[in-house]
Amino acid sequence: MVENNQNSQVKGSQSLLFARAPYILSAGSVAGSKEAEGPLGSVIDMTNEDDLFGASTWEEAESTMQKEACVLAIGKAGISPEEVRYLFGGDLLRQGIATSMGVEGLKIPMFGLYGACSTSGEALALAAMAAAAGYGEYMLAVTSSHFGSAEKEFRFPLGYASQRPLSAQWTVTGSAAFTVGYRAPDSAVNAFRHVRIEGVTVGKIVDYGLKDSQNMGACMAPAAMDTIVRNFQDTGRTEEDYDRIVTGDLGYVGQSILFDLVRGQGYDIRKKHMDCGMTIFDQKTQDTHAGGSGCGCAAVTLASYVLPRIERGEWKRVLFLPTGALMSTVSFNEGASVPGIAHGIMLVHC
Amino acid sequence: MVENNQNSQVKGSQSLLFARAPYILSAGSVAGSKEAEGPLGSVIDMTNEDDLFGASTWEEAESTMQKEACVLAIGKAGISPEEVRYLFGGDLLRQGIATSMGVEGLKIPMFGLYGACSTSGEALALAAMAAAAGYGEYMLAVTSSHFGSAEKEFRFPLGYASQRPLSAQWTVTGSAAFTVGYRAPDSAVNAFRHVRIEGVTVGKIVDYGLKDSQNMGACMAPAAMDTIVRNFQDTGRTEEDYDRIVTGDLGYVGQSILFDLVRGQGYDIRKKHMDCGMTIFDQKTQDTHAGGSGCGCAAVTLASYVLPRIERGEWKRVLFLPTGALMSTVSFNEGASVPGIAHGIMLVHC
Repeated sequence: MVENNQNSQVKGSQSLLFARAPYILSAGSVAGSKEAEGPLGSVIDMTNEDDLFGASTWEEAESTMQKEACVLAIGKAGISPEEVRYLFGGDLLRQGIATSMGVEGLKIPMFGLYGACSTSGEALALAAMAAAAGYGEYMLAVTSSHFGSAEKEFRFPLGYASQRPLSAQWTVTGSAAFTVGYRAPDSAVNAFRHVRIEGVTVGKIVDYGLKDSQNMGACMAPAAMDTIVRNFQDTGRTEEDYDRIVTGDLGYVGQSILFDLVRGQGYDIRKKHMDCGMTIFDQKTQDTHAGGSGCGCAAVTLASYVLPRIERGEWKRVLFLPTGALMSTVSFNEGASVPGIAHGIMLVHC
Repeated sequence: MVENNQNSQVKGSQSLLFARAPYILSAGSVAGSKEAEGPLGSVIDMTNEDDLFGASTWEEAESTMQKEACVLAIGKAGISPEEVRYLFGGDLLRQGIATSMGVEGLKIPMFGLYGACSTSGEALALAAMAAAAGYGEYMLAVTSSHFGSAEKEFRFPLGYASQRPLSAQWTVTGSAAFTVGYRAPDSAVNAFRHVRIEGVTVGKIVDYGLKDSQNMGACMAPAAMDTIVRNFQDTGRTEEDYDRIVTGDLGYVGQSILFDLVRGQGYDIRKKHMDCGMTIFDQKTQDTHAGGSGCGCAAVTLASYVLPRIERGEWKRVLFLPTGALMSTVSFNEGASVPGIAHGIMLVHC
């Protein structure tokens, strides 16, 4: 545990606690038609009946969402793109093209990331680390996913109408962006003023040897467990210290596995756990099987549902923990397992 | 320009100069048979006649190289994997599987990156930023590429024996890893002691609208120019202040474009320029057309050829600038342009 930025002597820790915790100053969220009909439809900043967002391909549609999410986040923070020092962003598509094409027009120096569905956590961790080190006044973190581009990238052509097992999840069409820094201009009426990133727990790749790409929740649950338990060990905390422990997209199957794995380590998070994939869709009416997934799932739920509650003080401390399944069509067709990774972001109201 | 980590007040700068510049403590390089026969064959740490490195797929071979490069770098630095706080790594393959599968066994908390062939610069920048902020004693940066996996990912099946235009480049089969920190243990006899990262210039995405995926040099040259000129402007330097300005993989075509573009901005880098893609292969005897390319090209050349010269003091100050072309088979088949990005790493002997 690093108690301040000058101290890094405790060996073996995966966590940082910032001496001067940066704020999430704003969040912008954009999503598609199915998300608009779901439980968060009324709190997402911008939704569109046209899942192509006026573009001619799914990839371009995803890029359009990313750009809109960035513009929204920057606008709410009351700053201009030129004031953002560095952008940290990524997505699920091969070679991260949704991000490259999406943020290109902003002309912000950028770090491209790949963390599968954990990308919102990875981007927020790096943005907070850069801000806390004084490397710039404002940082931007962004990610996205799109049902159409993800099915094309990982599964079957949409027109093929492949039947999905009940353990499968539904990729969220959505993007969210977050500005990180210490203070938004006083003129920024839509900025958050009370959400700080007090620290991060950077995840390791965890591989239990699972190979079912239609059961991502099971593949990612061990990584979520690993990062949660490391967070508790590094900080000396337990589930009692958090109002919510929010995973990204474990879904119904992954949640039950997570509960078992965490219990095996001596903790019980059942009363504190919330999963974004079980929050963004209504399982009963929306036919989304094991729940939502994709980088956009955790990011949009954080932006539209979790952060406003922290801002208002309803939740004082939240461990946000998006989870990623590290695989490609090539790796799983070659018989490789699907390891997972989860990055923990410690959010506090103050 | 940020003169120290606490100062970020100069607007519009893309560069950081570290108050206390971290060191590159070691580098490990691994490459294939063609690279072994090239000009750097005798200085690369480990080469293999079998380009599969004992694996059964190109992807697994690439992962094996990454793992070996990491083990070499960590070993030369005289430390153990558990002492590495964070790993920053990425590759060219979809969803970064060469890295995920390659570094998994090291069990180091990790940030997955995607910067196309600029990844060595991106990883070194983030490793240096994390070390300089005191977030851990040792950081590891790693990247790779493999001719077999890259042809499969981006071009044609190898057995198809497609003829390549002269502007095409040859993806390097290679990986290099770098440890970053302030001091290797005294017992580390193979560690560098005189190579510091004094600062970084983080690149923006630069898009001149080029669409020829068989002419990467032309696609990336504008990004290289942009980062070089921004480095000069941010630091108040010119080409006179560097012993070498080392681009990653512009090749012969990209180099001539870069010279023209930089001259248009009032600078002349011809006497100081070196390109890794023109260094790692012998164009006359190795039939590599416009030169080497891939994440491994810049990384292996830096590790085996550039850093030892800085360590010995032959070169006092080098701007290392790997360049990436941001595209996927999907994006170029859909008619999107191929934008570029280049990250600048300021290396000094001291």
